[in-house]
Amino acid sequence: MNTHARQAAPESPHGHAAGIDPDCIFCKIVARKIPSRAVYEDEEIYAFHDINPWAPVHFLLIPKLHIASMAQVQAEHAPLLGRLLALVPRLALEQGCQPYPEGGFRVLTNTGRDGGQEVPHLHFHVLGGPRPWLRG
Amino acid sequence: MNTHARQAAPESPHGHAAGIDPDCIFCKIVARKIPSRAVYEDEEIYAFHDINPWAPVHFLLIPKLHIASMAQVQAEHAPLLGRLLALVPRLALEQGCQPYPEGGFRVLTNTGRDGGQEVPHLHFHVLGGPRPWLRG
Repeated sequence: MNTHARQAAPESPHGHAAGIDPDCIFCKIVARKIPSRAVYEDEEIYAFHDINPWAPVHFLLIPKLHIASMAQVQAEHAPLLGRLLALVPRLALEQGCQPYPEGGFRVLTNTGRDGGQEVPHLHFHVLGGPRPWLRG
Repeated sequence: MNTHARQAAPESPHGHAAGIDPDCIFCKIVARKIPSRAVYEDEEIYAFHDINPWAPVHFLLIPKLHIASMAQVQAEHAPLLGRLLALVPRLALEQGCQPYPEGGFRVLTNTGRDGGQEVPHLHFHVLGGPRPWLRG
């Protein structure tokens, strides 16, 4: 875990690191300006427990880079997104999801108003544990 | 589009191509043994309309490689999954999802019984269009 990657990023003329939106709640969570319960962190990715869980297991996986949603994803983001998704099975088990095939989990990401997106910073919900769930 | 990639794959002792489960409904769809309405295809990825749509836009994106679910995903699959996800914004617009932020879409993948998985071949639902939706 390298928590210094963010500080090492170049500063913009506005005094904040490149790829960060200073008004974004998830960028503030990554910067520890807003507290969260961490699940995982590396130089590019952060995962933390949802504050309003819909299911016995509910955490969010986000790129530290501020990408507003899947609508802004470009081919250059493919390696980052692939690495993020490939973390899911390990983290889901670590967080208490039961093994496949009896257990498992749901991964979802919402984009825009029709998609039901609530925070404009790309995030993947990981939901698991015994049903019923509140949502998802 | 290269529809010959599958035929060129090495054959197993059981007479089917490596990475294919001959009993899997989505492998049969990729092999055109079961018909589907194609949305997109390349050597590694196939996308097709869901036969029981939950929303005005509802298609599935799958790797041609038989991976049962996210639970079987390994680090080696990260580039494939990243490329698959990075296709979503373009395909969603092509299929009639409205632009971000008013429009958008939902992407989800279900794993195991708790996740609500119905077909044991990794697939990503892409849902969009005006709400309400039947599910998702």
